[in-house]
Amino acid sequence: MENMENSARVPLEGALGAVREALRRALHDVQPPMLDLTAHLAGTEGKNFRALLLLAAASGEDGTIPQDAITAAAAIELLHLATLVHDDVIDDADERRGKPSVKSRFGNKAAVVCGDYLFCKCFMMVSELAKRYQDQYELIARAVTKICLGEMRQLRHNGDAALTVRRYLKIIAGKTSALFALSMYSGALLSGDEPLRVRRLARAGHYIGMAFQLTDDCLDYETQGDILKKPVKNDLAEGVVTMPLILAMAEKPELKEAVGRELTPREVAEIAAQVVALGGVRRTRAVAQRYCDKAAKLIAQETDGRRREELLALLEKIRVRVY
Amino acid sequence: MENMENSARVPLEGALGAVREALRRALHDVQPPMLDLTAHLAGTEGKNFRALLLLAAASGEDGTIPQDAITAAAAIELLHLATLVHDDVIDDADERRGKPSVKSRFGNKAAVVCGDYLFCKCFMMVSELAKRYQDQYELIARAVTKICLGEMRQLRHNGDAALTVRRYLKIIAGKTSALFALSMYSGALLSGDEPLRVRRLARAGHYIGMAFQLTDDCLDYETQGDILKKPVKNDLAEGVVTMPLILAMAEKPELKEAVGRELTPREVAEIAAQVVALGGVRRTRAVAQRYCDKAAKLIAQETDGRRREELLALLEKIRVRVY
Repeated sequence: MENMENSARVPLEGALGAVREALRRALHDVQPPMLDLTAHLAGTEGKNFRALLLLAAASGEDGTIPQDAITAAAAIELLHLATLVHDDVIDDADERRGKPSVKSRFGNKAAVVCGDYLFCKCFMMVSELAKRYQDQYELIARAVTKICLGEMRQLRHNGDAALTVRRYLKIIAGKTSALFALSMYSGALLSGDEPLRVRRLARAGHYIGMAFQLTDDCLDYETQGDILKKPVKNDLAEGVVTMPLILAMAEKPELKEAVGRELTPREVAEIAAQVVALGGVRRTRAVAQRYCDKAAKLIAQETDGRRREELLALLEKIRVRVY
Repeated sequence: MENMENSARVPLEGALGAVREALRRALHDVQPPMLDLTAHLAGTEGKNFRALLLLAAASGEDGTIPQDAITAAAAIELLHLATLVHDDVIDDADERRGKPSVKSRFGNKAAVVCGDYLFCKCFMMVSELAKRYQDQYELIARAVTKICLGEMRQLRHNGDAALTVRRYLKIIAGKTSALFALSMYSGALLSGDEPLRVRRLARAGHYIGMAFQLTDDCLDYETQGDILKKPVKNDLAEGVVTMPLILAMAEKPELKEAVGRELTPREVAEIAAQVVALGGVRRTRAVAQRYCDKAAKLIAQETDGRRREELLALLEKIRVRVY
C-alpha cells in the first residue's frame, strides 16, 4: 500500500525458484548449533502451495510481481516449516516429507527450540517489509495465534468421539486455513490492491486451506491399506478425530467405541476400511469440493485476467489432490 | 525516537503494578481452548526483574516513564513466560515458580502450543509500539533467536564433561542475557535516549543477565542438601553442565566420570557437596560479582540521577541474590 515504489517488479515466472533459493539461504545462514537441524530441513522440499498462492495473489496483468513478494513468500514457507517442526513434536511424527522429522532425528527438545528459532527467523525476514507494510507483522502474529488455537482445540478433542462437524471445521480453520488466508492476503496487499479485493482473496485463501486440510484427512484414510506392511503414524492410531471418521461415526455409532483407546495395527486398518466403506472419505471429499467451489467463485471476481488464471490453475492443482 | 509525543508520561511508581495488570489481562484475554493454560500461568507470579529493568532504564529525571514502557515491559514478561513454558518442556521440569509447570499440568504437547501462542501474543502486544519504533519487532525476534541458539548450545553440551568456561559463558549470553539486554535496550529506546546511551544500557543489561544466570547456577547447587528428602529436578541430575561444576571439574578431574550418566539421588547430593567443597560455587559467585561490577560501572555513567539510582537499586537486589 504505502511506498509501493520501493519494490521493483519481477516476472512471476521463475519467482518460485527465487523463493526456494531465499528459503535455502535462510536455512543455511544459521549459527553452528542450529545449522545441522535447519540444513536437514533445507534438504526436504515441500510443494510450496502457500508460497505459490501468495505469488499468484500478488501478480499483475503484465505477469510481474513486486520483488517484496519473494521475501514474503519465503517468510511464509519458513513460518510453515516452523509449525511443521512443532507439529511433529505434538503429533509424535517420525517422518516429514519422506525424510526423518527433526523431532525423530534430533529429539523433541531440539525440535522445540528449532521451531522457535524458525519463527524468529521468519519475523526477522519480514522486518524489512514491515517498515513499508506496518500491519504485516501483526498479521503474521495473528495468523500464528489462530494456528495455535486450532492446534490446542485439536489436542483437546483428541480421542473425543463426540466431536461435531462444526467444531472440527473450527479446528482446521485455525490449524490450516489461517496460513493459507495469510498467504493470499499478503500477496494482494503487497500488490497494492484495494482493501475489498485484499479481503476477498484472503477469504478465498481460507476456503482453499479448508479444502486442503480435508483432503489431507482423506489421504490419511486412503493410505491405510498398507498399514499392516509398514506401520505408519496416522490420525486414527493417534486418537486424532478428523472429518471422515466423524461422518462415518454418524452412520455407525458403534465406531465410537474405538476412538481414543489403544488400537492394534489390524484394528486401525479395519476401522479405516469401514470409514471408507461408510462413505466418510467420499463425503469429506465432497465438502472439500464445495470449499474449492467457493474459492473459485471469489477468484472469478478478479478483474485481472492473468491473476485469475494463475489462481484458478493453482486451485485446480489442489482440486486434483482432492480427486 | 520517532513520534515520542504519542506516548504520555506516567509515574515510575506504580508502573510495576500496571505491568502486572497488563500481563494478567493479556493472559485472560484468550480463547477457551488456551485459557486454562494461560490462566494457570497468570496464577504464578515472578519477580519481574526484566520488566523492572526496562522500566528503570526508561525513567527520566522527574521520575516518570513513557506510557509505552508499560506495554513493552508487559510484552517482555510475556516473552519470558513463553520461553519458560518451552524451557520446562526442554528441561522436563515439573515445577515453576512453586506451582506445577504447564508441561506437567497439561502435557508436553499442550506446552509447546502454549509457548508458541504466548510468543505471538507478545508480538501482537508490541505491534502498536512497533509503528512508532520500527526496529522493536526485529529486536525482539533477534533476541529470541539468541535465546534459541543458547538453548541449542546447552542441549548440545548436555552431559559434556569437556565444556569450557568460555563456551559456557557463550551459552548463557544467549539463553539468559539476551532478554535482559533487550529489556534495558527497549527502556532506553522508548525513553528517547541517544544511540550511545541506549547501547550502553543494553550492555549493562547483558552483564546483569550473566550475573543473574550464574547466580541461578549456584542456587541450584546450594539447594541440593534437601535432595534426599524431596527429589527435585536439578542441573546435575539432568546432565546440564553449569559453571560451578566446570570449575569443580578443573580442580578434580575425577568428577567428569559422573557427568552425563544416570545418577542416584544420593550420588547427586554427594557430587553437589563436592562441587561446593571444591569452591565451584564460591568461585562462580565471584564471577557473577564481577559482572555486577561491570554493569555498575556502565550504570554510573548515567547522567540522570534518578535513573542511576533506580538501576543501581535493582542491581543491588540481584547482587543480594548473589550473596
